[in-house]
Amino acid sequence: MSQSGRCIAIYPGTFDPITNGHLDIIMRAAPLFDKVIVTLALNSDKNPLFSVEERMAMIRRSVKDFAHVEVAKFSGLVVDFAHREKATVIIRGLRAVSDFEFEFQMSLMNRKQRPEIDTVYLMPDERYTYLSSSIVKEVVRHGGNAEAFVPPFVLDMMHKKYSA
Amino acid sequence: MSQSGRCIAIYPGTFDPITNGHLDIIMRAAPLFDKVIVTLALNSDKNPLFSVEERMAMIRRSVKDFAHVEVAKFSGLVVDFAHREKATVIIRGLRAVSDFEFEFQMSLMNRKQRPEIDTVYLMPDERYTYLSSSIVKEVVRHGGNAEAFVPPFVLDMMHKKYSA
Amino acid sequence: MSQSGRCIAIYPGTFDPITNGHLDIIMRAAPLFDKVIVTLALNSDKNPLFSVEERMAMIRRSVKDFAHVEVAKFSGLVVDFAHREKATVIIRGLRAVSDFEFEFQMSLMNRKQRPEIDTVYLMPDERYTYLSSSIVKEVVRHGGNAEAFVPPFVLDMMHKKYSA
Amino acid sequence: MSQSGRCIAIYPGTFDPITNGHLDIIMRAAPLFDKVIVTLALNSDKNPLFSVEERMAMIRRSVKDFAHVEVAKFSGLVVDFAHREKATVIIRGLRAVSDFEFEFQMSLMNRKQRPEIDTVYLMPDERYTYLSSSIVKEVVRHGGNAEAFVPPFVLDMMHKKYSA
Amino acid sequence: MSQSGRCIAIYPGTFDPITNGHLDIIMRAAPLFDKVIVTLALNSDKNPLFSVEERMAMIRRSVKDFAHVEVAKFSGLVVDFAHREKATVIIRGLRAVSDFEFEFQMSLMNRKQRPEIDTVYLMPDERYTYLSSSIVKEVVRHGGNAEAFVPPFVLDMMHKKYSA
Amino acid sequence: MSQSGRCIAIYPGTFDPITNGHLDIIMRAAPLFDKVIVTLALNSDKNPLFSVEERMAMIRRSVKDFAHVEVAKFSGLVVDFAHREKATVIIRGLRAVSDFEFEFQMSLMNRKQRPEIDTVYLMPDERYTYLSSSIVKEVVRHGGNAEAFVPPFVLDMMHKKYSA
Repeated sequence: MSQSGRCIAIYPGTFDPITNGHLDIIMRAAPLFDKVIVTLALNSDKNPLFSVEERMAMIRRSVKDFAHVEVAKFSGLVVDFAHREKATVIIRGLRAVSDFEFEFQMSLMNRKQRPEIDTVYLMPDERYTYLSSSIVKEVVRHGGNAEAFVPPFVLDMMHKKYSA
Repeated sequence: MSQSGRCIAIYPGTFDPITNGHLDIIMRAAPLFDKVIVTLALNSDKNPLFSVEERMAMIRRSVKDFAHVEVAKFSGLVVDFAHREKATVIIRGLRAVSDFEFEFQMSLMNRKQRPEIDTVYLMPDERYTYLSSSIVKEVVRHGGNAEAFVPPFVLDMMHKKYSA
Repeated sequence: MSQSGRCIAIYPGTFDPITNGHLDIIMRAAPLFDKVIVTLALNSDKNPLFSVEERMAMIRRSVKDFAHVEVAKFSGLVVDFAHREKATVIIRGLRAVSDFEFEFQMSLMNRKQRPEIDTVYLMPDERYTYLSSSIVKEVVRHGGNAEAFVPPFVLDMMHKKYSA
Repeated sequence: MSQSGRCIAIYPGTFDPITNGHLDIIMRAAPLFDKVIVTLALNSDKNPLFSVEERMAMIRRSVKDFAHVEVAKFSGLVVDFAHREKATVIIRGLRAVSDFEFEFQMSLMNRKQRPEIDTVYLMPDERYTYLSSSIVKEVVRHGGNAEAFVPPFVLDMMHKKYSA
Repeated sequence: MSQSGRCIAIYPGTFDPITNGHLDIIMRAAPLFDKVIVTLALNSDKNPLFSVEERMAMIRRSVKDFAHVEVAKFSGLVVDFAHREKATVIIRGLRAVSDFEFEFQMSLMNRKQRPEIDTVYLMPDERYTYLSSSIVKEVVRHGGNAEAFVPPFVLDMMHKKYSA
Repeated sequence: MSQSGRCIAIYPGTFDPITNGHLDIIMRAAPLFDKVIVTLALNSDKNPLFSVEERMAMIRRSVKDFAHVEVAKFSGLVVDFAHREKATVIIRGLRAVSDFEFEFQMSLMNRKQRPEIDTVYLMPDERYTYLSSSIVKEVVRHGGNAEAFVPPFVLDMMHKKYSA
């Protein structure tokens, strides 16, 4: 409980790479909770563009100016990680109808696992409503302009990956 | 900011009448914020079943056991009310896809008014995913059973209204 | 149960007027059940174009060639009417995403009232996916061509109403 | 056909009042067609804030700098108006999923009336994705800031209406 | 036709594994038809957790107490299998908007193949609205609790698979 | 601008194979623009049934009777291809809600790349609302009837592929 002085939230994702949409959600979540842990999910079956180490480094650099925001990684169930970190909140960005039903499914399944942990949804700025890591990669891979969508150093790293 | 010891949230609605779905959201929101103000919106053009006084009384009685939950009413823009109450968060329950786009519209319009106030979405228990005040009124009006959907004293008040 | 030789279904609606989309659903439902009762719902707050008597007559004439299809009207809860008629199935046409969530809400509320009565959804022919009584009325009122959407005698009755 | 040197489009709506979202669509449509007729639909049952004359004047003033954009009004079926004006295209803005199914319904019904007239959809700028005349009226009525959503002279006219 | 004493339905799926959501649909379908054939679809390109034999055994054990419910498997088009079995109904569970459009697509394509076979949709209990075989596998694989979602013996088999 | 006598549109896709739904969109688009370039997108990661050469040949043969319709292929960003061809319009068919959000995402990203190029959406005939190349392949692969969905020579080529 907030009254006890401790309400910890985690913000899980694959962050391949972290985008301005993710940072917008972090910026909105940071004032609401005593600590926000941006958490790299390692379970994903997807073949990532960036290694775990690269993604951790990109997240750390992106959030270094946010007070009370930490970075971590986990494998397994997100609610088990939250429990170990004494977090009671999972933060999710909600962009579009297509996100919505998947998020409902995850949220309800997570509640079955640990009812004391709940999911809180935040809406990104409308500039990021249709942004995803996948579409940014598609654009950069084909030589398009993604300046508006990721921090400059992330864009540099993407360019290096695709020119390699 | 939570760190400053004060994160106040408002939960606006018409509450005609308050349902178990509303109470589920309040129960989820209460631990996350230092104060939650359940706020009766007076602007609505709809012809309500219950008067403002009746609805205020029903809300007060329903939330009396929640610490840090207060009850208020407002007319005008919800963000202006939030500003006067020093609230930085608007709470909304998100039940279904049909809610979603309306909520996006409201949230983005509210941000244009006061960017420092943000909307946080919570998902009700799955038992309440398809619950609304309207459908409860429809059921009770035709003699159906709504015990699972509203507190007992609210059901009594509904029966009185419809038998009057 | 079908094994017992009796599975009765009701198909409720406001039928203002009955359209070829409704008839398509009736045609699909008729072979599946021992009896289908097309049932005019009287509760609706809407201001109908046709009187109850006119709508009952139009339904009767439209379904006269379907064996085992009857016509009735009811007020109150559809599940209570179904119970009185010993029906265990409510039939609904499902045309589009916008129907879907409303239908879920109704179906779940109906199950709370009488769990032994369930709702079965049928999809109309793709020609009728976007058909509704409302849009047919809008078209005919403005002199458009609705031959493809309602039986000829219904179209005649609509023309008479609008020229009156 | 465009090859014949004449492809005329109409952009129908109730425009109560015209918003920057409407103007964004007009700006996108203007270069695509030889003439765009912004067309006030008079059929609507809704109780408008502005009279037909006021709305016509607002549209005219808003589009006066667009070459090849004209303003008209009509009652009846939009396809009949299009036919009289020798237009072969109806332009519609598509903002969100909730628009989508209604637009499909209208489009398919219109094709049944006059197959030679087709509907073309344009997506507004993302700033206007969640904008509607209704929400602008709601905001202005309660003293909120709508500068980003309507032209300045429209805002003035709205203020006058609500202070009257 | 039911009147002729024979209305056979098939309920196709990949059932990898069968869940309580599937069983809820079977329980609802069983009283409506003279025979329900739960049918394992072999076409799927997906890499299943359980072999065809394991899945057939799990389905058989799960439905053994339902009278008039049989189990089969098929490859090819579901409507061809239905035709060989003299079934006139395909049963599908409809959980959410994201199911909806895919199901429409399948249903309309199936009607083109064999118009005499139609699809009937049933809605699972709200507890299963967001349940899928995929999410159950994800939960069990990471050590979560899936007792509410699959029969106990299925859960045992899943544990064995993942600990192997 | 159309007034300058040149409004060129591209219609990009993977066309594996081209269907009657694609041809319906081309037929609707052709009269609206001075030139329509049907454009095979080569970026797709998917494993296609038909080679680039086969697909180009199928498209060419399908559109040979449309005046002002050309065929091309491209890799990279669609807006860069459009720019090289002096096209200012991208044409997309919009079939269903599930298309909608993906198309919004693509459209907004494309505008960021080249604001002078815009996307125009057309709705296919209702017979093709639920048609996709994927489902046609699934049907033909299992011996079903796809005559209504692709031109006869495409169906022949599909039969040859699957019997090979």
